[in-house]
Parts: sequence; C-alpha cells; structure tokens
Amino acid sequence: MVTDELVTDASTSGVSRRGLLQAVGVGSGAGVMFATMGALGLAPTAAAQPRADAWTPPRGSDFTLTGRSAKKVVVVGAGPAGLATAYELQKAGYRVTVLEARHRPGGRTLTIRGGDSETDVDGVTQTARFADGIYMNAGAGRIAQWMVTMDYLRELGVPYEVFTNANADAYLYNERSGATPGRPVRYRTAKADVFGYTSELLHHATDQGALDARLTADDKENLREFLRGWGSLKADGTYAGGANRGYEVYPSAWNAHGTPLPGPGSVSEVLASRVGQYFPFEINWEQSMLMFQPKGGMDTTYEYFVRAIGRQHVHFSSPVTGVENTGGGVRVTYTPPHGRARQVEADFAVVTAPAGLMRRWDTNWGPETDAALGEFAVGSPAGKIGLQYRSRFWEDDHRIYGGITETDMDLAHVWYPSSGYGERKGLVVGYYNTGANARAYADLTPRERERRAVAQGVKIHGEKYRTELESSFSIAWHKVPYVEGAWAYPDTTSSGFKHLQQGSGNVYFAGDWMSEVSAWQHGAFWSARYAVQALHARVMAG
Amino acid sequence: MVTDELVTDASTSGVSRRGLLQAVGVGSGAGVMFATMGALGLAPTAAAQPRADAWTPPRGSDFTLTGRSAKKVVVVGAGPAGLATAYELQKAGYRVTVLEARHRPGGRTLTIRGGDSETDVDGVTQTARFADGIYMNAGAGRIAQWMVTMDYLRELGVPYEVFTNANADAYLYNERSGATPGRPVRYRTAKADVFGYTSELLHHATDQGALDARLTADDKENLREFLRGWGSLKADGTYAGGANRGYEVYPSAWNAHGTPLPGPGSVSEVLASRVGQYFPFEINWEQSMLMFQPKGGMDTTYEYFVRAIGRQHVHFSSPVTGVENTGGGVRVTYTPPHGRARQVEADFAVVTAPAGLMRRWDTNWGPETDAALGEFAVGSPAGKIGLQYRSRFWEDDHRIYGGITETDMDLAHVWYPSSGYGERKGLVVGYYNTGANARAYADLTPRERERRAVAQGVKIHGEKYRTELESSFSIAWHKVPYVEGAWAYPDTTSSGFKHLQQGSGNVYFAGDWMSEVSAWQHGAFWSARYAVQALHARVMAG
Repeated sequence: MVTDELVTDASTSGVSRRGLLQAVGVGSGAGVMFATMGALGLAPTAAAQPRADAWTPPRGSDFTLTGRSAKKVVVVGAGPAGLATAYELQKAGYRVTVLEARHRPGGRTLTIRGGDSETDVDGVTQTARFADGIYMNAGAGRIAQWMVTMDYLRELGVPYEVFTNANADAYLYNERSGATPGRPVRYRTAKADVFGYTSELLHHATDQGALDARLTADDKENLREFLRGWGSLKADGTYAGGANRGYEVYPSAWNAHGTPLPGPGSVSEVLASRVGQYFPFEINWEQSMLMFQPKGGMDTTYEYFVRAIGRQHVHFSSPVTGVENTGGGVRVTYTPPHGRARQVEADFAVVTAPAGLMRRWDTNWGPETDAALGEFAVGSPAGKIGLQYRSRFWEDDHRIYGGITETDMDLAHVWYPSSGYGERKGLVVGYYNTGANARAYADLTPRERERRAVAQGVKIHGEKYRTELESSFSIAWHKVPYVEGAWAYPDTTSSGFKHLQQGSGNVYFAGDWMSEVSAWQHGAFWSARYAVQALHARVMAG
Repeated sequence: MVTDELVTDASTSGVSRRGLLQAVGVGSGAGVMFATMGALGLAPTAAAQPRADAWTPPRGSDFTLTGRSAKKVVVVGAGPAGLATAYELQKAGYRVTVLEARHRPGGRTLTIRGGDSETDVDGVTQTARFADGIYMNAGAGRIAQWMVTMDYLRELGVPYEVFTNANADAYLYNERSGATPGRPVRYRTAKADVFGYTSELLHHATDQGALDARLTADDKENLREFLRGWGSLKADGTYAGGANRGYEVYPSAWNAHGTPLPGPGSVSEVLASRVGQYFPFEINWEQSMLMFQPKGGMDTTYEYFVRAIGRQHVHFSSPVTGVENTGGGVRVTYTPPHGRARQVEADFAVVTAPAGLMRRWDTNWGPETDAALGEFAVGSPAGKIGLQYRSRFWEDDHRIYGGITETDMDLAHVWYPSSGYGERKGLVVGYYNTGANARAYADLTPRERERRAVAQGVKIHGEKYRTELESSFSIAWHKVPYVEGAWAYPDTTSSGFKHLQQGSGNVYFAGDWMSEVSAWQHGAFWSARYAVQALHARVMAG
C-alpha cells in the first residue's frame, strides 16, 4: 500500500503490524516460508517463487532475439504499482495503456498543493488554499533507505531530501498518564530519563547478583560499562539527570552554564508517564532514520513515471467497471471523462486497484478470485490534516526543525515539515491518526476537524498554534473515491493470497496489498515487479 | 571552538567532554555557578554576568540618541568568533577592521574544494584535486538545531540542509572485541541485539523480584510493558532477534518474506562485542539529530559574514604579531601580504586567535593575562582525510545514505556525505580521529595517510574502497599554521578563565575556548556576543 504506516501507533491501537507479523510467526525465518509456499500456476517449480531480491526486468531483446512480437497490456490504476508495471513493461517494448479512475496519478501518495481540490464520497469538496511552495503529503510520507523506492527515485531522476522521521527536540505529550499530565516533554528529555532509570535498575540488579545465573563476571562488567554510558549514570550507578535531558537555556560562553530543565521525576513518575512507549518507533525496521522524501511532494515521483511512460498512454478520470478474460486476451470496460462507457482489448491486464473495490466490477475471473479479493474488502481508515501557518513558530520558538510529536490524544501524531526550514510560512500535519480516531475526525466537517485538531495542538505548542493558522486541508482516506481506505493488510498465509499471485487467466494483480510490506511504496513496487515477471515469463513461454 | 567535537570518542580515549563536565560538577545546576562567578571588572554588578540567553545587540541608536560617536575596533581573526564580533559591532555603527593570518575566512570551519591548497607547519603542501561540487569539511561539520549557529545561518540567509549524524544502516566495526572480530555490523542490528538482551535481563530481574525494594507493582508493569516494546521481546520476556535487526534481503511482495541476517549471538557475545559503547552518542545533548550543515560546505557561512561586513574591512594573510594597550586605545601590529609590518590604532581590539598562540605576540597585557592564556597553550590534535570516489558504492551497494560508521581502529570514524545523494561521485571522510591516533596519521606523508586509511576502510567496505578511489586530501589540525590544534577546553572554574572575561584594558577576548561549549561554533558565537556586550557597555558608560 501506499500510505506509509505507523507501525507503533500505541496511542490508538494495541495492535501493530510488527506485532501482527510476530503473532503469525512471520519474519523470523525465511526458509520455512519458501518451503511452504507451493507452486505457482504459471511456472510450477519452486524456483519460480521470486526471492525478495530476484528481479530480472524484461528486455526488448527478449522479443527481437526470439522473433516474438511485443504484447499489449492494459494497466488499471496509476498509483505506484500500476505506474511501475507500465513503466517496466514499456521499457521492454510492451504497448501499455493505463486507466486511472482519479484525476491524477499517485494513488495514495497524494500531495495536496494550493488550488488542489478533492471531493469525498459524501460529496464534500475541499479546495486547498495553500501558498506557493507549501504542500501536504496527504498519504505516503517517507521512504526508508533500504526500500526499492529509492531505486526508482534514482532511475527517474526525482530529486529527494531527508525526511525527518525522528527529532530529539520534538515533543511527547501524554495527557492521560504520568505524574504531570498536560506538560509536553521533549524526546531527548524523555529518553535521558527512561534510559537513565532503566540503566540504573539493571545496574543495580547486576550488582545485587540477581543476574548471576545468566551472566559471567565479564558479561557483568561489559554490561555495567554499557549502562553507565547509555544511562548517563553516576559513578555509584545511579541516575540523576544531566546534560542529555536538554536545557531550558542552553550553555553558551564565559561561565553561563545554562539553565537545566526541572526534573527528573522519580523512577515511578517516569515509568508512569509512559513516554517510553514511543521509543521503539525509531529503531523499527521500516521507520529508522535515515529516511527520504521527494522534493516538492511525494507524488512528484509519479509525475516522473507518467512523463517516462508518455502522458498519452495514461488516461485519467477513467474509472474501470469491468475486466474480462476473453480466451486469448482481456477486455476492460471503463468510462472516459465526459464520455460513455468504452472497451479496450489487450493481451493482458494488470489490475492494481484497491482489492476490495474490484468486487464491484463486472468480471469473469470466478469465485475463487472473488473470494480472495474479498479478504481485502474493507480498507482501514486513516486521516491527516495539513495546517498552513503564517510563521514557523515550531522552528522559531520551539527550535524543532522537522520530526514528529507523539501524543495520546485522538490526533495521535503531529508532523513538522522536513523542508522549507527557516522560510516564512510552513505546514504542520496536525493529526495523523487511524482506526476509531480517524473515523471520528472523518465524521466532522473540514472546519470542525480543523477546530478540534487546533484545540489539542494548542496544549502542546501554545496559542500561536491557533493564532498563526491560515488555512487547512484534511483527508479521510476511507472517504476518498476509488480508494476508500488507507491500507489493507494481507493474511500472507491464506490460500487466497497465494491464489492472487497466479492471476486469473490473462489478468494479473498488483498493489502494496499483494506484498509483505503493505502500506509502503516498496511493497507496491515489488508486487508490480513480480506481476511483470510472471506476465513476461508467460509471454516468453508462449 | 570551531571544529565540532566527538563527545564520545570511546575508541580513542576514555575521557569525554561530557565526562569531564560531570567530573568537575558542571552542568547540573546553573544557580550556583552564577552565584560564584563574581563581579566583572567593567561592570561590577551581579547582573552584568550574562545569562546564556542574554543577548541585547548594540544598536546604532545607542550612539545617535546619546550623542556619542561610534568607536573603531580591530578584530583579530576571521573565524566564527571574529566575524560575528565584527558583524555585530558594525551593525551598530562601529568601524571595524578584521585581521586574519590565514588566506581565507572561517578558521577551523575550513572547507576544502578542488584547487584548494594548504601548507602545513612542516612545509608540506597539498592541493585538492576534487571534482566540481565535491568538498570536505575539514573542521567543523555539524550544527545542532538548538545552537545559535542556526540563528546566524538564518539571519545571513545561508542555505542549509540536514547533516546525517546518525544512520541505522551505518556500520559498527570493532576488530579488537567481540566474538566475531572483523565483521562489521549495522547500527540497527547492534541496537536490536543490545536493547533486546538488556531488556530481557531487566525484565527477568523484575520478574524475579530483584527490584521489589525499588519498584511498586504498577512500576513493574509499566517497566515490563516498555521493555517488551523496546527490546522486541517475545511474550515470555526473552529476546530472539526479529525484523528490527534488518535483513540480508528485505521482505518484498507475494510471499517473499526476506532473508534474515545471521544471529543474534548470545548475550555474552553481544555484550563482549562492545558495540553498545557507540550508542550514547546519538542521545548526547550536542549530537542528537536533527543536525544541519550549510549547503556546499561549512565555511560558506563565513563567506556570507565577510560579504555582510564588507570585504574591504577584512584583511587576509595578515598575521598579527603585537597587541598593545596605549592608554586610550589599542595598537595592533600585523604584516600584510607582500609588505612590511604595519600598525593600526583603534579604540578597542577583540582578539579571537587561538589562545596559546597569542603568547608569542608582543603584548603589554601583563602576566595575569599571559598566564590565563597559557592555560590554553597546547591545542588538541585532530585529523581528517577526505577520500573522493568515482562512485558512491556506500549508497549503491551498502545502501548507506549519509551517517557515520564507528570503529575501534585508529581511523576512529568514517563519515558518509550528507549531500549529493545518488550523484556519480562522492567524498567519504576516511578518518576523523583525535589524540594519539591523530598524531600518528599526522606524522605520515599525505600519500601514506591515504594508504593507511584505505587499508582499514577496506575491511568494512570491501575492495571498492580502494579501487574506486580517485584522490584524497588530509588535514592535521595541530600542523595548520596559525591554528596549531583542533580545540582547547577551558577549565571554566579557573581564575584565569574568569580573568579573560574581563579583557585587558581595551582588549577583549573571544573564541570557542572562552565558552561552555568549546569546539563548537555555538560557543564561539556566544563568546563573541559577550565580548561585544561588554565592550559596548564600556562605551556606553564612557
């Protein structure tokens, strides 16, 4: 999928993707998986199951050297999976036609800029009144450096920059827990205290002999050395604060040693504040820095894809309503802008629409495929609001240059911009929430969403969060036409999930929901690659 | 000071600045310090001691409204302290002349670009053969977002970008410790294992009742909840690896779950590998992300300063050899390029040269000032080498986009570039070391330094680290003329340090070495501000 996922969304749900994967026993050993996956319809050998790094792009010479003629493929959807499919096929000489239901490419990598307009499934229209250069990544917002997304940025020449997924000076704000509710604390302070006290406790337990059954004398000395550094412990092994907590006024010159922050509280207070629940995010495999974003907005990538494919091959505002196998090929029914339903025939189709929505189409791919797609019938809700401010008070006053503030309020996450530092205006993502919180905001009018988000943000940032506001734009992904959800996670062990990998006749499926890394462009791209590979193998075998 | 400091340089020295400050009892309470600092000569009231945030720039109206005429000030040194001094004074109407011994501004914020030439105190000349757009920050390399340096970047309009001070995919490489010497491990893997096992141990100790005297039942439950998330613990409280360690091949689509890395080793092996010693760096008060750098090189800032001050007021290659109080003013002796010694008279001088070097000048500021400057007689050595490569294999093959690899070898740190991602060529800082290691490299020829650095870097990065190399440039700060050291830390409790804050007659002192944040531009800037404030107060009182 294409909106990136907050793996540790502890404030809204106890269930994380990570936890889910652990629960189903995935991620701890690949060999077993490969052995249990079984054969594919098209190439029924174990070797045909792609390895995660197995990508041999089809090439034009595959046709010219074998006397075959290139085939025609209709791609449904101009999001990451669809555009990557079309791009890779076209590079090898396939004739491609992309049909996109929405008026723009990118799918859930939507970037909202001034003048952009969106109408939701209830008919509510918002038009962004953002200033030049201000944008909001309403969907996908970040790319980890190991992801294949980086390769496409590089291949296409998309300019990119660091996405600030973590910042020691961003805030943690738990109003429902802790000894001092209502007081935001900076990440650096929270870390110093949590790591300080947990190091002290483990140092103490080690000294008391509580771990003697587990650790040798050398182990204990290595452990204590680590804890003293990591926890900023005093020589006696206790934690009493220190510079890593940050300062109210930082040290400067002469003998101005700075003004320390109040605290630390007691170990009980620090544990009860539950700030530590936010820390795993930064060491998460999908979320660790460094991360990147395309300059100017995430959907910039897809403008580059469309340019590379050729704009004449990508048809927008052309929703598909039917996909049929015709024996030797496929017939796709769609409605072009201002026109009547039309049909296009091709050798193959690669369908990348949200799986759940495909069940509304006229298809003849049969009950097994229908049932498999039905596993994705409902997309999860997620919402964001972009708040444009006339000043960047989070940089000027709070000295937060990018990063994410975490809360236990229903707005969940607040994102500061990773670009435009020091400029006059800027845009803060005032909520990024999921589940029930996302539904609650979605049920409000855009104006009410803004008011609710601002009222909560003021608690952290002060009155400027209200008085400097110029305009806002909010998205509720489960209300976006032709999307209707932020993401849907596959049960990768289901027989339906395996069935979809084989496609149906001359129809193949792709999308982040067909991947091990759902909710990320990485998963969408790899699903496209595997679909392209399977399709091409079929053509070469024909 | 102006070369940024590696606070936790655990591989080269057991003594960190942080530790030093803790040892002398500094940083844990500001009130006491203010109370003990005593009066200043020029403004003998407690209020005259600046607070860390106390900065009231002198203004032109201070003169025009009081009928005073602006004064003339000679500033010695065109590094951060000198240029900020001249800039702030000139904004208020002072007439300033800056005398700089070297041929360029910036001091220890030196950026080396193609064509740049440096001759060391032994007469060894290197000329950089870097490609267009390639540069090496030979000195200062990073700016924390809380530092006043950010304010000057913004005021002057210097473009800046994220400096990647930490990267989950950079390596840790300890060849002298651990069960598997010679095998680099990525930060993310090391963190998962260290945090996993330490969380397991503390979870276990908690379960065993070892902390019952310290923790309530609620505390214990809060602690266990934190540990399970932070350590990726299984339901039974044990650590067995997981996705956060990273992958040999990352998960992609269909059922390609990825290839896990080998490991984790046992708790003894992980502790013995001593990788955890590098972790405190990332939560250090001076080093935590986000950090920033000027685009195009750190000394860009000082080009902007010179432009703002007016190039005609800044005299390069003009080493000072004498500073004298003359009763009502000062007389400064210097040697202009291709000329004979010359003298300039002014109302005041602000001297920002390295303290130790001033003792070679002809001065009449007396034995107390001489002795105080003598506290800084020897600057610490530090060295860097910039290795220009014809390909960015660390990005292409290792997927490391910026950040720092840590080692226990004598090269200490390897820096990957924070700019130019995905471009063809790039520059890696192949060593950044201090102390004995810096001296060892400094004693080699530039060619030998390169060979030694490359031979070690190959152990981590493979043969491309040798075969892709195009050229190098190395610096040994204790051999740079008119600098002769990377930094010098003040004993901020000494009477000499306090004496220097009063200046001597009409001479004031500034420099990072006059600060609480030595080795950082932040400290240099604040020392300049305090000198300017003291000087201006004197003028206004006159």
